[in-house]
Parts: sequence; structure tokens; C-alpha cells
Amino acid sequence: MIYLDNAATTLVKPPQVARAVQEALQHFGGAGRSVHSASLSADETVYECRIALARLFGEQHPERVCFALNITQALNMVIAGFLRTGDHVITTAAAHNSVLRPVFAMRDTRCVEVSVVPVLPTGELNYKAYEQAFKKNTRLVVLPHASNVTGDVYDIDALSAIAHKHGALVCVDAAQTAGVLALNLADSNIDFLAFTGHKSLYGPQGTGGLVCHADVLPDALFEGGTGTRSFSLRQPHVMPEYLEAGTLNAHGLAGLREGVRFIEQRGGSAIEAHISQLARAFRAGISSVDKLHCVGGGSACGTCGIVAVTCDTIDASTLAFQLSQNYDIATRAGAHCAPLMHKALGVANGIVRFSFSSFTSQDDINAALRALRSIVAE
Amino acid sequence: MIYLDNAATTLVKPPQVARAVQEALQHFGGAGRSVHSASLSADETVYECRIALARLFGEQHPERVCFALNITQALNMVIAGFLRTGDHVITTAAAHNSVLRPVFAMRDTRCVEVSVVPVLPTGELNYKAYEQAFKKNTRLVVLPHASNVTGDVYDIDALSAIAHKHGALVCVDAAQTAGVLALNLADSNIDFLAFTGHKSLYGPQGTGGLVCHADVLPDALFEGGTGTRSFSLRQPHVMPEYLEAGTLNAHGLAGLREGVRFIEQRGGSAIEAHISQLARAFRAGISSVDKLHCVGGGSACGTCGIVAVTCDTIDASTLAFQLSQNYDIATRAGAHCAPLMHKALGVANGIVRFSFSSFTSQDDINAALRALRSIVAE
Repeated sequence: MIYLDNAATTLVKPPQVARAVQEALQHFGGAGRSVHSASLSADETVYECRIALARLFGEQHPERVCFALNITQALNMVIAGFLRTGDHVITTAAAHNSVLRPVFAMRDTRCVEVSVVPVLPTGELNYKAYEQAFKKNTRLVVLPHASNVTGDVYDIDALSAIAHKHGALVCVDAAQTAGVLALNLADSNIDFLAFTGHKSLYGPQGTGGLVCHADVLPDALFEGGTGTRSFSLRQPHVMPEYLEAGTLNAHGLAGLREGVRFIEQRGGSAIEAHISQLARAFRAGISSVDKLHCVGGGSACGTCGIVAVTCDTIDASTLAFQLSQNYDIATRAGAHCAPLMHKALGVANGIVRFSFSSFTSQDDINAALRALRSIVAE
Repeated sequence: MIYLDNAATTLVKPPQVARAVQEALQHFGGAGRSVHSASLSADETVYECRIALARLFGEQHPERVCFALNITQALNMVIAGFLRTGDHVITTAAAHNSVLRPVFAMRDTRCVEVSVVPVLPTGELNYKAYEQAFKKNTRLVVLPHASNVTGDVYDIDALSAIAHKHGALVCVDAAQTAGVLALNLADSNIDFLAFTGHKSLYGPQGTGGLVCHADVLPDALFEGGTGTRSFSLRQPHVMPEYLEAGTLNAHGLAGLREGVRFIEQRGGSAIEAHISQLARAFRAGISSVDKLHCVGGGSACGTCGIVAVTCDTIDASTLAFQLSQNYDIATRAGAHCAPLMHKALGVANGIVRFSFSSFTSQDDINAALRALRSIVAE
């Protein structure tokens, strides 16, 4: 299989990821629960994973990295953990449903005011509308680092600086960028960074989380056993356990630790260069095929390695199905859980998303282009 | 290592669990996201895991089994998803902090009335106080199937029948019993069953969830991409995706599926018989040692394979540490995240918990008893 669906999950991982999970399944007790070596092994690995992520993201305090089932939970932890009746929240039409649905739930249940900054038909964010969206009660801004539809990267530095100027907290959805693009919280105006473990960080599914760079913490969405201060009937207000009730996925985090170390060893800038080169080559290839078009992809801030394609004569689902069935090329068709983005781009009927990783080669790209040419010519 | 900390997490799993996770790490895309074979493989495995759990728990509708990071999240989903200002909730002093902390958070933030049914110094629930605790506004009862401190099983049939007579919903915390004791939702008054994957179901960490046997659903605690109805800005009100936003831990669920199949193959009643026989033998051994005492353990409904031990001359932490350091026997000391239970039992200074699994042998028990006799005699 030629796997070009890395924006959903990376299928090919560094081999040490699976090895570490296997090892963990043989040796781990519950992290943070007991004093025997099996429990301490789990503990140590989880902490090493925190340290590796903190280093990758330029976060000085590893204990501010907390883990969740997935990035969706991390985003909900910020959105539902901060917004109260009377607050105003800003998001964008480029947002994924993991932001839009919790934000609109806050409007429904807590009368939170919601502003959605429009996206231009090119895929660019309307920066002027963004700046005008701020109000006195703007408490939180939730920004995608890159679109999961077009791969366009947004100017997160400029956007978060504007938000801080207006006194709002900034949460960045790095689902498509953590592990691909440099992120340095120390130099940033980002307060909360939500990340997924199983995409470009090459960890197993069931991993992801939140870096609480800000000093202020959201209300905990889940409470329970933390292995600490057990006689308190309230969740201990200490990171990371404040946001980590119950047994962690230490087996998965053992793999994630190896994924992050792989990125450090290969070097973030080499990964970014490889992936953006593939995206450029693929875009160039698509533009040479009659009837095929790229959607978005023109951001001055670059790409996270996604190319969105439409075809004049074949709908997206059929195209993705043919690529899979006849050429064993895995892509994703449909709405990609980003409804407002699809409407803004004028592709409500769907696009075929090709997404690349460190393990994608120029040969893979060439094979995909050959397959597309054949399908379109039929 | 002799591992007797199975109530925290089972360390020894059937070998097919790790094999399935390994296989999944090589072959899975994101479940429910795309049409290529890698995504469909993940999909199929997740669905098979639902079916296996539904069969194990006597739930006719597999789609009512939903997955979370751990049982703590599942319990929070019910507690925070149902309770509103003016409601009354009943729980017990035998509850884990995964119930107590969210329940008390509801009291703090939503003015929910909370009743905690006392536990007698024997570890038995005060059934009379339970029946008297119901009020007109009692909306929910959250019951442990067994104590995670003493292993005592509660009469869940009687307790849930009383709750239904009073019109309250019933949520059962089966953290210590799912996989050990028979649970048949079809014949029960249980509305919500919360389970953990990594204890007696022998799955990996990062797995657990909720069976919504009732027709009524809690409000979703987190919302996001479901891969379905992507153009709706509201979470689709369809199980299981309503309660499963974001990418599932399909890698972990591949392992959990094998854990549940192992239980089916070995036979639930054989597992229960093995584990309760070990608990009986261990209790008998403890009672023959001067200075050592068992706490609780006298339930007429049986045991889930936990024995709580105190020593007249050595505190619990020291005893567990010596067992680990000098005999390589893993147990857990401390408060076990069940503060009110410890107070009720008069062991606020902690107990040493010995907990057994299908993979614990009589030899393990004998070795633990020998070690205890030596330590106490020093």
C-alpha cells in the first residue's frame, strides 16, 4: 500500500515505537500508583515522554504537559474548562469539528458568544476580520496552526500576538503540525498547545494532550484518582495530575516517547523540508493534469504536507475509492470534519486529501500522480 | 517478580493481547475515517471489540458500548453528563475518588445534593441507610460493584432494584469486577456500566469505557470529529460516536478485544472460582500469622480477588516496600484513592493490598505468605 493518509494517522512509524509498546506491555504496572519496579518503570517512561515533548515544544516545565485520549479531549479541556456565561470566544472557519462542536456547545449551554473568523476562497484567513472580531469580553481564541483540509499554515505568531494585545488566552490546535513545523512556546504568545500523538509525532493511537504554557489552568473536565492527596475529595490543583484523572495510557506513551525522540534525531527542520518538498512536487504534478485542481495551498507560511485535490469529472469519494481499490493508494475523501472550511473553499462536495510524512518518498508521489492521470484519462 | 497488584493493572496478559497490538501498529489507519483497507481494518477491530464486550456484559446493542481513555472518564461522563442543579445523587463511602471527586465537583459547581451511604467497620454497606437516602429529586445512584480496598462485592442486584423503585438511574463502577464476576445487563436494573480495559479484561492501558444500557444518554462531556455528519456543528446524537469524539485508541482496542476473548474462552465462572479460591487461601494464611490482620473481606456476595492486610508492628508503606525490595513481590500500599472507605474501616494509615488475577498461582500466594511471615518475625 502507498499510504497518503498521514493527516488522519501515520501508518508507518519508526520501528522503535512498536518495540517500545511491546516492551511496555511486558513490564509496566500502573504509572504513579505503587512503589514496585513495574509501576516505577511506567512512571519513568511517562515522565520521559513529558520531558521529550516539553523539549520539542520549547516548554520549560515538563509537568505542564498533560496527556489525554486524543487531541479532541485536549481542545475540549481548554474550551469547556475556561468559557463561562458572558464570555466571548473567537475561532475560525478553518477550524476542525474538534473546535467548532465544543465551541457551539458552549453557545448552546452557557450562552457564550462565538465569532467565527471567515476564510477566503483561497483558503487564507481573513486577518482583517480576525482583528475586528475582538470584544471586551473576548476570553479565548482557538486557532488551527494549519488547515487539515488544505495544509495551509497560518501565521500563528501574528495571530496570537493580536489576541494577547486584546487580553485573550490563546489555544493552538497543532493536530497537523506538531512534529512537522517548529513550535517554541518559550518565544510565543501561545497559552495552550493541543497536540495529537498518533499523527506526525509517530506515536500510537490513544495518545495526545495539552501543554498548559500559561500560568492559569482550565477547570478540570474529568476528576478522579490521581495517586496523590488521596484523602482530598477535590481534584488536587497540581499539574499534571490535575488534568490527568485515572490511569494513563502508559503503554501508548512508551511508543510516543520513541516517536518524539525519532523527530529529535532526524531533526525537525529536515522533516519539514522533506514534507514541504513532497507537497510542492505533488502540487506541481497535479497542476499539469487536465481536470485536476488543487484547493488552497498558497499560504506564505508554508504547508504541513497536505494537498487537497478536486476533479472536474469524478467526485471525491469515487476518486479516493478508485485510488484505493485499483492502485492500493490510501487517501481520504469527504468533508474532513471541517465543514466551514469546505464551504469557504467552495468544495462542500468534498476533496481528496493527500497527506505526507517522513516516510513518504518521491516514488510514492510519482505513483499517485500516475494513478490519477490514468483514472482521469479513463 | 511475583505480581500481586492486579487491582491497579494486570501486568501479565494473555500473549495474544500484545500480539494484536503489535499487528495493529503495523496495519491500522484511523478507525471510521477513510475507505482504504488500513482504516477499515481499524474500524472492524474496534467494532469486534464492542461486540465482544457487549456479549460479555449481556448488552444486546454493541453500539451502546463506547470507549474512553479509562474508566474514570466513563464515570465522569455519566456523573457530569446527567446531574443538574437541584438533582440529588447517592454514592457510597466505598466509592473510589473517580466517583467521589466528580460527585463533589457537581456539589461545588452545580449545587447538586450529595448523599454518601456509610460503610460499617466490617466493610459492609449500610443497606438501611442506603434505602433511607432516596429523595424525590434523586436522579442518579453511583455504586461500586466491589470495593477496591477490601475486594468485598456488593449486592448490586438488590441495590439497583431499590434505586429503580425510586426512579433513579443506576451507574455501576465495575473497575474491579468486569472480567472477574458475571455481569448481565439484560437481566439487571443497571443503566450504565463503567469498565476499565487494563485490569481484569487484560487489555492495554488507555482502554475503558461505558455501556449505556439505558435508552437515555448523558450530555456529551466532550465533542469533536466523529467521521459522521461532518457538516453539523453539533455532536451527532447517535451512539457510539455521540460519546466518542476524536480518534479512538484502535491500537489498544485490538489488544482489549483479545483480552475479552481470552475471558470468554477460559470461561467467566472458572476465572471467578480461581480468583476467589486464591483470596480465600490467602486470607486463611494471613489469619494464621500473629500481628497480621485482614480488613473487610466478609461479604456474603463474595470477593473480586483483593485482600487488604494490616500489621500491628509495621506500617503499610514499609511492609509493601520490604515485600518489593527483599522478595520482589509487587503489592500496593496507601489509601488506594478511596478515602471514605479507609476512614470507615479505621485504616486511615493505609493497608497493603494483595490482588490476584487469572495468572496468579497458589505458589505465588504461598511465596507471599512466607515473605510476610519472615518480615513480621524480624
